[in-house]
Amino acid sequence: MTDSITITRPDDWHLHLRDGDMLRAVLPETARHFGRAIIMPNLVPPVVTGDQAAAYRDRILAALPDGMTFEPLMTLYLTEDTDPADVAAAHASGLVKAVKLYPAGATTNSASGVTDFDKVRPVLEKMADIGLPLCTHGEVTDHDIDIFDREAVFIDRVLDPIRRATPGLRVVMEHITTKNAADYVRSQDSDLGATITTHHLIINRNHILVGGIKPHYYCLPVAKREEHRLALRAAATSGDQRFFLGTDSAPHTDPNKLSACGCAGCFTATNTMALLAHVFEADNALDKLEGFASRHGPAFYGLAENDARITLTKHASPVAFPDKIDTPDGPVTVFDPGFDVYWTVA
Amino acid sequence: MTDSITITRPDDWHLHLRDGDMLRAVLPETARHFGRAIIMPNLVPPVVTGDQAAAYRDRILAALPDGMTFEPLMTLYLTEDTDPADVAAAHASGLVKAVKLYPAGATTNSASGVTDFDKVRPVLEKMADIGLPLCTHGEVTDHDIDIFDREAVFIDRVLDPIRRATPGLRVVMEHITTKNAADYVRSQDSDLGATITTHHLIINRNHILVGGIKPHYYCLPVAKREEHRLALRAAATSGDQRFFLGTDSAPHTDPNKLSACGCAGCFTATNTMALLAHVFEADNALDKLEGFASRHGPAFYGLAENDARITLTKHASPVAFPDKIDTPDGPVTVFDPGFDVYWTVA
Repeated sequence: MTDSITITRPDDWHLHLRDGDMLRAVLPETARHFGRAIIMPNLVPPVVTGDQAAAYRDRILAALPDGMTFEPLMTLYLTEDTDPADVAAAHASGLVKAVKLYPAGATTNSASGVTDFDKVRPVLEKMADIGLPLCTHGEVTDHDIDIFDREAVFIDRVLDPIRRATPGLRVVMEHITTKNAADYVRSQDSDLGATITTHHLIINRNHILVGGIKPHYYCLPVAKREEHRLALRAAATSGDQRFFLGTDSAPHTDPNKLSACGCAGCFTATNTMALLAHVFEADNALDKLEGFASRHGPAFYGLAENDARITLTKHASPVAFPDKIDTPDGPVTVFDPGFDVYWTVA
Repeated sequence: MTDSITITRPDDWHLHLRDGDMLRAVLPETARHFGRAIIMPNLVPPVVTGDQAAAYRDRILAALPDGMTFEPLMTLYLTEDTDPADVAAAHASGLVKAVKLYPAGATTNSASGVTDFDKVRPVLEKMADIGLPLCTHGEVTDHDIDIFDREAVFIDRVLDPIRRATPGLRVVMEHITTKNAADYVRSQDSDLGATITTHHLIINRNHILVGGIKPHYYCLPVAKREEHRLALRAAATSGDQRFFLGTDSAPHTDPNKLSACGCAGCFTATNTMALLAHVFEADNALDKLEGFASRHGPAFYGLAENDARITLTKHASPVAFPDKIDTPDGPVTVFDPGFDVYWTVA
């Protein structure tokens, strides 16, 4: 039995940190294990300009506890009014590492997102020119499209047309949840990557809906049927460089989760690396964990890997994680995988 | 424009009344409009014997406010220990109108349900002999079956084999949610009927999961994709005698709905008839409402139709319903159809 592995310190290529009190409460959960993270810009109001991203980066760094090292990789929220020159300047300065496309209304704080994709074409062409990746929330929002079809329809109606119309644009299909998405990524060239969350490797839609409705397992894109979860497991553990970790860890307080209209998001920052060790071990792929969590992401983004290393240790008995993170806004429930976990990170 | 219709007083062929304070709080919501209802036996502990059903009937009648008329049609909860002779005696006395089959673990308070269907064969054969209908919660509970497939798999693996093995057994497939179930009923003889809830005519699974998770729209069987909702609408408004109303109205308090594991059930007793008038009018089938709500059910159960009549009136402006019913156990949220309603019942 392998009882410990040491790997390059991982990065999280999709993370929600929010702002203010919540930022201060949850940032250590990520910074404890991860060297860097792509920081989602869906604040209220969203992070749209280079100046706003710089200010947000400063707030994140100011919230970092003494003794922790962590580099926020900033993104801009793409709107129909986004200025290509501002995007290019924010990229040239080294501040901004990606631009995020939210179809309007797709998820939490996405009201400022894109409705008319033609309006963002000049930005996308500029990004292709300068090598700045586009991160996508890959769901259409049409009322008449079933929620479980929205990712597959996005590929056909939005993502594939954008990629054909914008040669050279690097795109990350974020938090993929379907075999359709994994297959599409595999069928394309190295300009397309995909992140996979920890929770989508663990739950399928039965976890949300069998025997009671479980808001803590609800995120968007919503978990699909089991065959899709298995396809994500196969992609994550395959060693294919186009698949890498993006937790989409999102801190919503319990009152906001357990309501008549509960917020979308799972909070996995606290136990992601332990859960991934469990998942990769279960699939006899512990040797692929470093690639997925620590190497494929930097390669896609053209960044160096972290110098630091972490050690994951498997214990003889199950280990405990906090059920909740207390924040001034209220408790945030930590994702419960529903099975015993034996791994810790040092 | 039709602005009022008068129909035979309807019955509800699938209703949860619970017991004690909750029973007293919600019974008037049903008795106000409905003449009779098939009363679900999934109390804790369940209503298993004829004596228990008689006692429960007495508690229901004692809870009925002065001046209201309502007849509870009692059912027995089928367990692997159910005694065929007790069932036959309870039927012969006129007390019990149906026996309810819950696959173990399928829904609220179903832990005493059936795991081994061979064990209940003597009861089913007795029921076929005496003409006592079997009501089924039509979902398998196998861990590896996707929740959205569980009704269709139940037809193939449980319902169809039971019907083939027990000729003459009258069966109601309750709260059907799929085109598969509607098609199956249509393909069979008049020994098979199906109830359809009000809420399954109105919501699909997008209502539960788009833009936030909505526990008040969560019931079991869970609402399926839109094509299934449309198939239910077509069945309900078809005039086919095998389809009739069973609201499955179920009072869960808000704290029990809005929790980490929220209870399954929609409370529609208060506004069901108004919503059905809206639905049938929208489908140009107001002339089929009486059959669905008031005539097909008695015909299936071999009972006379109610003598009383009710009048549904359409108003020029939207009408209001209470958002919640206050009960000593806590507030119970009334089903919100998500559209303006113009109909009232007198």
